[in-house]
Amino acid sequence: MSEDKFELLKSIKKLGIEKDLIQGNFGIEKENVRVDKNGYLALSPHPNAFGSKLTNPYIITDFSESQIEMITPTFTKLEECYEFLENIHRIVLNELKDEYLWPQSMPPNLPEEEYIPVANYEDNADGNYQRLYRDHIAAVYGKKKLLISGIHYNFSFADKFLETLYKGLGEKDSFKNFKDDVYLKICRNFYRYSPILIYLFGASPSVHSSFDSRELENLDKISEDSYAVPKATSMRNSDKGYRNLEKFIVSYESVEAYARDITALVEAELIQSPKEYYSPIRLKTKKDKNILKYLLEKGIDYVELRFLDLNPLSKIGIDLETLQFIHLFIIYSLLKKEKNKKIELFHLENSDLVASFGRQEDMQIKISKDEEVSFDDWAKNIINEMKNMVKEIGVNDEYFSLIIKNAEDKIKHKHKSNSSIIYEGIKEKNYIDYHMGKAIEYAALNQINQFNLLGYEDLELSTQILLKDAIKRGTKVEVIDRNENFIMLSKDDKVEYIKQATKTSLDSYSTVLIMENKSVTKMVLEKNNIRVPEGKNYDEIILAKDDYSLFKGKAIVIKPKSTNFGLGITIFKEEFSQNLYNRAIDIAFSHDSSVIIEEFIEGKEYRIFVIGDQVVGILHRVPANICGDGKKTIKELVYEKNLDPLRGKGYKTPLEKINLGEAEEIFLEAQGFNFDYIPGDNQIVYLRENSNVSTGGDSIDYTDDIPDGYKKVAIAAARAVGATICGVDMMIKNLNEGYKEENYGIIELNFNPAIHIHCYPYKGKNRKLGDKILDILGF
Amino acid sequence: MSEDKFELLKSIKKLGIEKDLIQGNFGIEKENVRVDKNGYLALSPHPNAFGSKLTNPYIITDFSESQIEMITPTFTKLEECYEFLENIHRIVLNELKDEYLWPQSMPPNLPEEEYIPVANYEDNADGNYQRLYRDHIAAVYGKKKLLISGIHYNFSFADKFLETLYKGLGEKDSFKNFKDDVYLKICRNFYRYSPILIYLFGASPSVHSSFDSRELENLDKISEDSYAVPKATSMRNSDKGYRNLEKFIVSYESVEAYARDITALVEAELIQSPKEYYSPIRLKTKKDKNILKYLLEKGIDYVELRFLDLNPLSKIGIDLETLQFIHLFIIYSLLKKEKNKKIELFHLENSDLVASFGRQEDMQIKISKDEEVSFDDWAKNIINEMKNMVKEIGVNDEYFSLIIKNAEDKIKHKHKSNSSIIYEGIKEKNYIDYHMGKAIEYAALNQINQFNLLGYEDLELSTQILLKDAIKRGTKVEVIDRNENFIMLSKDDKVEYIKQATKTSLDSYSTVLIMENKSVTKMVLEKNNIRVPEGKNYDEIILAKDDYSLFKGKAIVIKPKSTNFGLGITIFKEEFSQNLYNRAIDIAFSHDSSVIIEEFIEGKEYRIFVIGDQVVGILHRVPANICGDGKKTIKELVYEKNLDPLRGKGYKTPLEKINLGEAEEIFLEAQGFNFDYIPGDNQIVYLRENSNVSTGGDSIDYTDDIPDGYKKVAIAAARAVGATICGVDMMIKNLNEGYKEENYGIIELNFNPAIHIHCYPYKGKNRKLGDKILDILGF
Repeated sequence: MSEDKFELLKSIKKLGIEKDLIQGNFGIEKENVRVDKNGYLALSPHPNAFGSKLTNPYIITDFSESQIEMITPTFTKLEECYEFLENIHRIVLNELKDEYLWPQSMPPNLPEEEYIPVANYEDNADGNYQRLYRDHIAAVYGKKKLLISGIHYNFSFADKFLETLYKGLGEKDSFKNFKDDVYLKICRNFYRYSPILIYLFGASPSVHSSFDSRELENLDKISEDSYAVPKATSMRNSDKGYRNLEKFIVSYESVEAYARDITALVEAELIQSPKEYYSPIRLKTKKDKNILKYLLEKGIDYVELRFLDLNPLSKIGIDLETLQFIHLFIIYSLLKKEKNKKIELFHLENSDLVASFGRQEDMQIKISKDEEVSFDDWAKNIINEMKNMVKEIGVNDEYFSLIIKNAEDKIKHKHKSNSSIIYEGIKEKNYIDYHMGKAIEYAALNQINQFNLLGYEDLELSTQILLKDAIKRGTKVEVIDRNENFIMLSKDDKVEYIKQATKTSLDSYSTVLIMENKSVTKMVLEKNNIRVPEGKNYDEIILAKDDYSLFKGKAIVIKPKSTNFGLGITIFKEEFSQNLYNRAIDIAFSHDSSVIIEEFIEGKEYRIFVIGDQVVGILHRVPANICGDGKKTIKELVYEKNLDPLRGKGYKTPLEKINLGEAEEIFLEAQGFNFDYIPGDNQIVYLRENSNVSTGGDSIDYTDDIPDGYKKVAIAAARAVGATICGVDMMIKNLNEGYKEENYGIIELNFNPAIHIHCYPYKGKNRKLGDKILDILGF
Repeated sequence: MSEDKFELLKSIKKLGIEKDLIQGNFGIEKENVRVDKNGYLALSPHPNAFGSKLTNPYIITDFSESQIEMITPTFTKLEECYEFLENIHRIVLNELKDEYLWPQSMPPNLPEEEYIPVANYEDNADGNYQRLYRDHIAAVYGKKKLLISGIHYNFSFADKFLETLYKGLGEKDSFKNFKDDVYLKICRNFYRYSPILIYLFGASPSVHSSFDSRELENLDKISEDSYAVPKATSMRNSDKGYRNLEKFIVSYESVEAYARDITALVEAELIQSPKEYYSPIRLKTKKDKNILKYLLEKGIDYVELRFLDLNPLSKIGIDLETLQFIHLFIIYSLLKKEKNKKIELFHLENSDLVASFGRQEDMQIKISKDEEVSFDDWAKNIINEMKNMVKEIGVNDEYFSLIIKNAEDKIKHKHKSNSSIIYEGIKEKNYIDYHMGKAIEYAALNQINQFNLLGYEDLELSTQILLKDAIKRGTKVEVIDRNENFIMLSKDDKVEYIKQATKTSLDSYSTVLIMENKSVTKMVLEKNNIRVPEGKNYDEIILAKDDYSLFKGKAIVIKPKSTNFGLGITIFKEEFSQNLYNRAIDIAFSHDSSVIIEEFIEGKEYRIFVIGDQVVGILHRVPANICGDGKKTIKELVYEKNLDPLRGKGYKTPLEKINLGEAEEIFLEAQGFNFDYIPGDNQIVYLRENSNVSTGGDSIDYTDDIPDGYKKVAIAAARAVGATICGVDMMIKNLNEGYKEENYGIIELNFNPAIHIHCYPYKGKNRKLGDKILDILGF
């Protein structure tokens, strides 16, 4: 590579911070218009599920009530940022009823101006400001244009990179000025080279016939319902798009010059505020208000790239590779040597040219006021420089090279560009049908495996559900210890730390300690007149045998304290002799040094999930089982049942795979089966004694099937130990007898009950426990 | 043994429940009058520390404001009951300022009737009732008599014993009637044989000259200040004692007969209520009010033996052996066959006789209306029967035989009886001086090793302190899981479960989880602008080394995540090269797979104990150390320091013994010493790097020496994590500079800080944290 073009990279390599060069902080904002199934702008209000439009940090409205804006937090990994965007997108889709997300930047079928709903805000200072601003821009630009949607890409370099580079270069100037220079240079080079981005990622080649009629003049009709400049790549980035009425050249030589020029525009009343300067790249600060003042005082914190169209070819309107290419382009903009610090009018004109005519084979582009070159040659040259740069950086170069090669391919073959593919699609199917086809397809895709929160699959599913529901309603989420499933939720001044979804501030430590100790739990429940299996713990055989007279004539269970595969358990339902009793005790003690003898309570076990004074979900869990067909072996049937995408390993999926291990082998053996046994048609074979979902059990929703009396007992049990969130394990005999006091017994209370099993039961409804927990937490 | 005398025992043995026969439920009530150092009745109010006189279940007032009554809960082990009584006694002693507990049943030096303070109660229904009853008995019996104090012994058999016996005997009658018969028989035999108890345990041979002058008539002056019937054993049990004005014979043939007779007494206005029937043994029910009604409906729950004098020879007025003998006597009363179910007047007269003349060598006792036998022969016969009975029961027989043998000895040698020894003492030293000598001696003894709660020494000292302070103020205590130091406190409707003294309902589970996770704690404190050592955790050597630029030029500590004897730690206080930095990282990783690099904060570490928004104690802990004298070796100096009774093992004492193990050996070696090294005079040698009290460190109270600024920071830190009870570990540099923000750093927050170290520091004040915790719990 030509050394002088990338002299900065030489210094970076000398400092050994190439790795840090390719780090950064990334954030994405993306708008999508809501439409009905026919591609008409949705006139319904912004869904309630997303909470406040003013304060939800992830999901708000943009100009129109029907225009959803999705905002990711800042991530240091672009992949994570992208996955988070996909999460928000999926969360939004999940809440839409009979509506879709319009996958195109240019608007769908629009009603007349007056019927386009402007975003509706709460009546307060912030809400009023938002409304006033919208009224102003609606008057200036027209509501239809304001429905044009796009993607904003926020970027800053890693602090460590900038700090080390600053020190390494031995700059005399302040760090603030050094940093400003870095980002200003990126902006200038962006203006110079962004036509290539518009060509590559432009995805709005036409507009619908319902669009602002003034803008349709001079356009060709390319389908029944749409118009275009025939070789356009991005109508949104062209003069038909949403941009300032006049073309401004604002200086990027220094922050001072930038602020001076924008202030002049405001003073000349060409724009109302700095915010109305619609540049394709913006200087940004952490604070959003008084931005020019803050820029001058504290310097640039990051840059915002605003040129990116929604890509209808991509499931969520953008793909990761595009974001990665833009990241490389920013690095290129930093490293590429400049001749001067000027941005000229022809730079802006080049962008317009590519937006409107980018797919013309013979397009020319200006390289100075008077000189033109072929766009293809110009673009190939940039691509070559980027290739060399990536090689020179020497980190992830193969990976980056592939991304560049894909871009190069699109330059070489214009029909492979996004805009070309979309253009052909619109021509073939019409504008609305083509885009609605995509929208409906993507919505259907979203229904598959939708329980995961991308990028958080290592967390327990219960925690993923809670995070997802928090994002939905605009509660800020932060994972503070991944291994521990420890998260922080916040909204306004309220902060909550939550571990494993149900360990919260709502339960006191002593409540947890009571539930952690089974004998103490039983004691407390008994004191509160709640039925528990009466019984005693024994550490000595002789004491257990001595108590024969205590249990004689009762139905009892004699079991090792820690049960394993149900071994060592004896149940006496009727009269038993001291001899039989002694033998059962000997058996139990042969499995454990501690033995429990307690009242036998007949029936089935139910997990009753209590939050506050409400039962929010009830499950009956069935031990791991398969249902025979008279042909397949147990092994084959298990394999088949495990194919269900809901079944996984380690609490990451709603259900767990059935294991074929020692425990299952022993349990089958006891029934006279083995893994190769072929059960009869409809024969149900159980593979475990215990019914835990964690060992492959099935969860069956009984929330609406349990008599109220038992629910009241469960609530009373939770209250007895002072619990707000509590999983009550209750045995109930003869459910169809209605509530009878003698028919139940509480086996255990759980202070960390899983919520995912109630959200994705094997059979039954999603009981939305994430939302219930957020409600009681006050979010 | 003669079988017909104990035929019941034969059945018991046949049923195999001999072990259960000697079980029981035991409770003790004991009164002591408060006196000043000269033996005058204390005229001060009942100490505030004991809370409400009406509701404290352990410590109340009896008739007089100056008469403390101590009440144990019911225990199934007599030893535990006795120890609990001793605990209450010690707790009471601890709160007395310049006062003593009068060790004698008969009153001390009394003022005139009008100056004797009657117990003063709160103005409410219960308080008014208590006052009215006292006014009545003061008028009937005179206040001076009401100051006579004694011990009540509550007993019932184990349910299991009675139930099995009932079933085994195949009784036709109801279980209630069977149980009533058991206790009624005990009462009847008590009346027949109790003279032996009065002889053995009578301990009030004389009265003070300030006693009711009518009662002094006909008495001999036996010392300057006291009068007696010369051979009396128990003036309290004689007609000079506090008893009904007339002698009543109440039937114990059945509960019905008993109730009928007492009702007749009330109707004849001989007594005001059943409560005023002052029998030496009483039938009792669980409920205290409407006792006759309850007795008739539900039957007898237990018996109360009321004859027992305070024994001035015993530290707390009673010894365990006496209680054990009485237990055996009750068993004897159950087993001993009766000729009939009558109690005759001569039975009552026998008791009076022994009370007044029991030490006469030639005393005769009636065995029927007309027959007399020598008391000695009669008593020896009972003793022989008891001996045989114990042998026949065959459980703990050697132990019980010894107790009986000691009693036998006192019968054989009258001068060995309690009353005789006390009588001689009074004659020699005078009544007041003799008893005050004992009172002062016992109070002094109480000062030694007073940190333990007897019978609870297996619990952590922090829990013992909390229990002790709870008992003191009348909060009901129950240990619900000994191994876990899990206790229940209750008062009225309020119930609190507490583990390890500081794990309570006041802290939420999430607060605890934050504190449990060091990196999360740091994060939360940082978010709240509280200084913590900045730093990072590393699991990979290469990442740690990569971050050289991050730490360069700062004072840092590089340490293995789990430090051991301070090994593997490097501290850089000034500039350091990448080379040195790398080497320090290698060393740290050679000790642990996880390494922390953090800011080095100079200074000393303080444990700041925060409760609510208050700092209640501050300790600086000094690593295990000894101070040389130029002669002894380190080993000898450690041995000497460990002799301190405050030092023990396993959190059961305020301080821990210094160990001479591997850690100490390595640490001394690093200083060039070994266990046989002789430190110079006043040379302080440290044996550990870490300063934990648990490894022999010294705790030094700094509560009053830390500038307020740091206390505020500690409170803010606790608040940041939402903690109510929190041990804040803070490094502070230059304490004498006053508060400076840059001088502190918080190392750790503890959700289960020990309280005992603040109550019994090596140097400094008892900060009474048990009381502080009970206060914040609302008890």
